[in-house]
Amino acid sequence: MTAQIKLAQKLRQKKFRAEFGLFLAEGLRLCEMAPDSQIEFGFYTAEFLANSRAEKLVGRLKKVAPMQEVSAAAFEKISETKTPQGILLVMRQKLSAPEEVLAKNLIVALDAVHDAGNLGTILRTAEAFSCGVVLLDDSVDVFNSKVVRASMGAVFDLALAKMSRAEFLSLMKKSGAEILAAALDSTAEIYFEHKFTGKTALVFGSEAEGVSAEILDAARKIYIPMSGRAESLNVSAAAAIIISEARKNFA
Amino acid sequence: MTAQIKLAQKLRQKKFRAEFGLFLAEGLRLCEMAPDSQIEFGFYTAEFLANSRAEKLVGRLKKVAPMQEVSAAAFEKISETKTPQGILLVMRQKLSAPEEVLAKNLIVALDAVHDAGNLGTILRTAEAFSCGVVLLDDSVDVFNSKVVRASMGAVFDLALAKMSRAEFLSLMKKSGAEILAAALDSTAEIYFEHKFTGKTALVFGSEAEGVSAEILDAARKIYIPMSGRAESLNVSAAAAIIISEARKNFA
Repeated sequence: MTAQIKLAQKLRQKKFRAEFGLFLAEGLRLCEMAPDSQIEFGFYTAEFLANSRAEKLVGRLKKVAPMQEVSAAAFEKISETKTPQGILLVMRQKLSAPEEVLAKNLIVALDAVHDAGNLGTILRTAEAFSCGVVLLDDSVDVFNSKVVRASMGAVFDLALAKMSRAEFLSLMKKSGAEILAAALDSTAEIYFEHKFTGKTALVFGSEAEGVSAEILDAARKIYIPMSGRAESLNVSAAAAIIISEARKNFA
Repeated sequence: MTAQIKLAQKLRQKKFRAEFGLFLAEGLRLCEMAPDSQIEFGFYTAEFLANSRAEKLVGRLKKVAPMQEVSAAAFEKISETKTPQGILLVMRQKLSAPEEVLAKNLIVALDAVHDAGNLGTILRTAEAFSCGVVLLDDSVDVFNSKVVRASMGAVFDLALAKMSRAEFLSLMKKSGAEILAAALDSTAEIYFEHKFTGKTALVFGSEAEGVSAEILDAARKIYIPMSGRAESLNVSAAAAIIISEARKNFA
């Protein structure tokens, strides 16, 4: 079992997540949402079992994967949170085939979103509005625990694929999708004035740089008019505004 | 100067921020946005002065308040970030009078929003859409450094007041404002179908509990239709969606 604890600890690092194809899901709610088929093994503390919801969860998990009870001290060594709840799963990474993402009429493409909290929040929003998600080059690792937590489990449910910018542009072109890039640009169209005509990809860029030139060159630009002193919105707020507006057109 | 460093360290704690009426603003961009009139004193490192933008900032700050150059080691003791940029200001807290907030046609009221990142992001969104902001009981301290950072300086610019729920309801009633509460409730109206008629307050509740019963009783409920498995959106995403929609009606 020590080997499993060591492995779990290693999964805090991106290189080991990539090497093993595994990631961590921690906390009651997230573990409740974890699909059986992706669960490898897990840990819980005796203290975690204090209520019936927790007991029920561990009962279910024991049927699908080895679950090890560990001391609170041992749990703290694997936990990434300040006040651990006492439940953590090691899960198999799973991404969707590009075709599955392309089957959606609304696709959210993230072009080098670096902040884990922002990426997780955008995944949660994309899932709530039934979008497919494409992660382009240089985005933060989607299996980073902060992303998984902020996504509130959306990472388990989403049609989510990784690809290069070139591959994305080629697939969008083939499928006849319109590419809309959020940009702070006076030549851009106001986001709620755009007429959506069919399959659409909404692209959001990095917090500091925005959408890359490679994508901008192939995209139509839209922007959110602002009236305050603020130069921009948080990328997860901008994504929520534009995704929800676009979704109205495909209802 | 040791006393100033000690004071700055204390300001990490809410009780000392309240006792002294001060708070911390850290980082190049935030310090650039800091209004002169609220700056008490500050610290920077020699390393920070490596570029002309940083030099220009420190030059400006020196004209309005005592700025102390400290060693990188001393700076780390006051900094709250993992990789400090080397600039930090101690600032006077400033809230707006309720009348100033009420003068806005669109008011965002936060009812026990607990997460600092969420509150900061909502403040940034509210500022971008020229809303006034009311912080109701039990919300996280708006002068918490994480809130200040996530707000990207919006906390300096906003018409922002704190009040009790009872006071808020009474002021809204007096001013004839409509209160709309975001709620996951099938009796609620779809947010984009609501007809805005005049001064409006949009209320967002805590991440776990939503808007309090006290406010819900006096409010009209609106909701964001979702199609995914997600039970809800992040409160900062929900706020962005509803605020931007409401703003269209007051353009």
